[in-house]
Amino acid sequence: MSKKFFLPESEMCTQWYNAIPDIPGGLEPPRHPGTGQNLDPSELAIIFPEPLIEQEVSTQRWIDIPEEVNDILRLWRPTPLVRATNLERVIGAKARIYYKNEAVSPAGSHKPNSAVAQVYANKQVGIEKLATETGAGQWGSSLALACCVFGVECLVYMVKCSYEQKPFRRSMMQTWKGRAIPSPSDTTAAGRAVLADDPECPGSLGIAISEAVEIAAQNPDTNYALGSVLNHVLLHQTVIGLEARKQFAMAGESLPDVVVGCCGGGSNFAGIATPFLEEKLTGKKDIRFVAVEPAACPTMTRGHFAYDFGDLAGLTPLLKMHTLGSKFVPPGIHAGGLRYHGMAPIVSALIRDGLVEPLALHQNECFEAAVTFAQSEGIIPAPESSHAVRAAIIEARKPENTDKVVLFNLSGHGHFDMLSYDKYFSMQLEDFDLPQQHLDAAAQHLPANTA
Amino acid sequence: MSKKFFLPESEMCTQWYNAIPDIPGGLEPPRHPGTGQNLDPSELAIIFPEPLIEQEVSTQRWIDIPEEVNDILRLWRPTPLVRATNLERVIGAKARIYYKNEAVSPAGSHKPNSAVAQVYANKQVGIEKLATETGAGQWGSSLALACCVFGVECLVYMVKCSYEQKPFRRSMMQTWKGRAIPSPSDTTAAGRAVLADDPECPGSLGIAISEAVEIAAQNPDTNYALGSVLNHVLLHQTVIGLEARKQFAMAGESLPDVVVGCCGGGSNFAGIATPFLEEKLTGKKDIRFVAVEPAACPTMTRGHFAYDFGDLAGLTPLLKMHTLGSKFVPPGIHAGGLRYHGMAPIVSALIRDGLVEPLALHQNECFEAAVTFAQSEGIIPAPESSHAVRAAIIEARKPENTDKVVLFNLSGHGHFDMLSYDKYFSMQLEDFDLPQQHLDAAAQHLPANTA
Repeated sequence: MSKKFFLPESEMCTQWYNAIPDIPGGLEPPRHPGTGQNLDPSELAIIFPEPLIEQEVSTQRWIDIPEEVNDILRLWRPTPLVRATNLERVIGAKARIYYKNEAVSPAGSHKPNSAVAQVYANKQVGIEKLATETGAGQWGSSLALACCVFGVECLVYMVKCSYEQKPFRRSMMQTWKGRAIPSPSDTTAAGRAVLADDPECPGSLGIAISEAVEIAAQNPDTNYALGSVLNHVLLHQTVIGLEARKQFAMAGESLPDVVVGCCGGGSNFAGIATPFLEEKLTGKKDIRFVAVEPAACPTMTRGHFAYDFGDLAGLTPLLKMHTLGSKFVPPGIHAGGLRYHGMAPIVSALIRDGLVEPLALHQNECFEAAVTFAQSEGIIPAPESSHAVRAAIIEARKPENTDKVVLFNLSGHGHFDMLSYDKYFSMQLEDFDLPQQHLDAAAQHLPANTA
Repeated sequence: MSKKFFLPESEMCTQWYNAIPDIPGGLEPPRHPGTGQNLDPSELAIIFPEPLIEQEVSTQRWIDIPEEVNDILRLWRPTPLVRATNLERVIGAKARIYYKNEAVSPAGSHKPNSAVAQVYANKQVGIEKLATETGAGQWGSSLALACCVFGVECLVYMVKCSYEQKPFRRSMMQTWKGRAIPSPSDTTAAGRAVLADDPECPGSLGIAISEAVEIAAQNPDTNYALGSVLNHVLLHQTVIGLEARKQFAMAGESLPDVVVGCCGGGSNFAGIATPFLEEKLTGKKDIRFVAVEPAACPTMTRGHFAYDFGDLAGLTPLLKMHTLGSKFVPPGIHAGGLRYHGMAPIVSALIRDGLVEPLALHQNECFEAAVTFAQSEGIIPAPESSHAVRAAIIEARKPENTDKVVLFNLSGHGHFDMLSYDKYFSMQLEDFDLPQQHLDAAAQHLPANTA
């Protein structure tokens, strides 16, 4: 029996799906970080190129993918849709399990889908340099890859503890000509302020974003690139779900009953899930969408739904989203890509409207699921993706899902995360549940009048 | 323009191609390590299962692939054939370049092609445990993966310096339930003898093979598995070239003009090359076959063609092959998989018969080629595979290859070898040329009367 479903390259997506016009309750606009007033899109031009600003605010349902972008995505896309028959047998699944394998990209995750589109848009308007941040390194290496291909310089502020713990992600960036700087650094005012306060600060995504945004805002030849959260990033990831739709037809399946993705900033989840919204909205099929986060950073399940900053220093626009507060520093779990205080406004709005179910899981149960997956399907999942694996297993075992179809996104492989597997095997991983007082404290740090 | 050529799973190979009957000068039989007499195949039964011994000595041109083997290979096979148009542009290629991407397997190389077939054959005859050796870790992790899938125990003697330098290959084996033991170890007489002589010995493949063979010979429930060199291992790898033949038809190409592979023990090279022998032998097309080795371990270009042991302790049968002598310890280049004193008898015989051209390259030029490949095609090659990349670039730039087709095997990715890239970038890699006196000394260590 066939297990992998490969789309021919001639079937690659030619348009992205923009979920914004389909959000029942609509999307609230971003606000200016200083004034708190609705932001004029043109104000984003200081750090983003015009084509991405257009995508960010577009209400068109379908947006053309430039051919130059597809020419690069073609290096690894379309990615396979795989029927996980071995996993099904091992876990005694009642449902059929399929996964979309985004680990096959050169950087090892879904991130290059957006990196390529972003670098191309910047290249179009003559930008010569991009600044960004990275935590575990998936996004930084993806942007370095895309910059390398288009001949754009790439500067990556890498959270200092990751910079030290994951030297091989740095080497990967260097191979693609990217330059990694440990953050906080003395190259920005934001970084210097943090270092003055605490010279030993291990860094956080919020600080690194502040540094990258500052560099982009101050240098006319430099723009900023973000690897998740924003509308245009989620847009670029919809190739995942759009390909999967066609591959389900190849597999002789109609549509999935449950779609699962892990959720840090929201882009891989939205990428696999939103292209299936149509059937849910039209009542054609009652598809369930499960967005999985770590219990240690429970943005969607326990956070506030409010306007908040995307970064520590408060340089980014205010976004209406689920948030634990921009000052929140999550415990050091190993799914670095899920350690973010906020959530994409699109995903947040879909949760508000009851279309997406958030689910929080502990890291040990996720690593256990990842090992089960590796031992049956071969591939070693990234710690982030292990959350999707665990949730898919939970769903596939439910009696009410008998003979149904569970689809999850394997957003990346764990080749650069084996240290976390070592810690799991030696039982050194702690399961965190965030105490309520942390959430209450986070509420105190929300900007005023932003509910 | 389409770049990747995916075979449907329905087109997976159902038979392996056995090159032995097509070697013009024939293959000389293995000899007993003690008596020096021709070995009776049944004497191999102490460490190998009957189905593999049959494959080892078979003179049938085509051998059926068990369905149970294909059921597992299907997790990642067929692998893509890729037209490297970006690389062609960057290097100013005169030829068209195609590569077979074997890096897509869960273990990251071609090695699982044989690991799965070997574990299945052992499982068939009731073996519960396999012992093997590994250097850089590609083979050990591949055997662990295959053992895990079939429920067989896996014991891997890992060259001690690699065990210490590459902890993440160990973690990978552990994820697939494999147990890695640093070699030399005190678990075997061979290991204890080495340690008594030199407690700080960093180990070598030759020592690790001795340890694994000893364990297999002494325990009835345990067999030995080798990742290259032997006829049956090369046989299993022919799926690479057989798939490529079909994919060339999909690409609208007839056949390659030059086929390139890196050569440590010979299995990935033979896997991509021998399925194209027919046209060369029948005069239908004068295909060139280029086998690439490191100048630091120049087995094919400067070694002796003689009967020699496969291991340090002299436990293995004597094989007629190109060899630098079983006592030879190659310099510490980073392509660990190419640091072996011997060469597959099949590849050696094809060199003798003038069908295969050996080529020795230095590591810095290979890393340079690997970085060029990574910056154009995305994928970061394994240090071993970088030798094939470099040779393919050399061939593709030759004026006489204008409009011709160069095919090479990308045998693995470098995700677990980024330390070697770091050293390349910081110009810490040395290029070795083996002094003639080393080769002369090696000749002194060849077994008597074995020319």
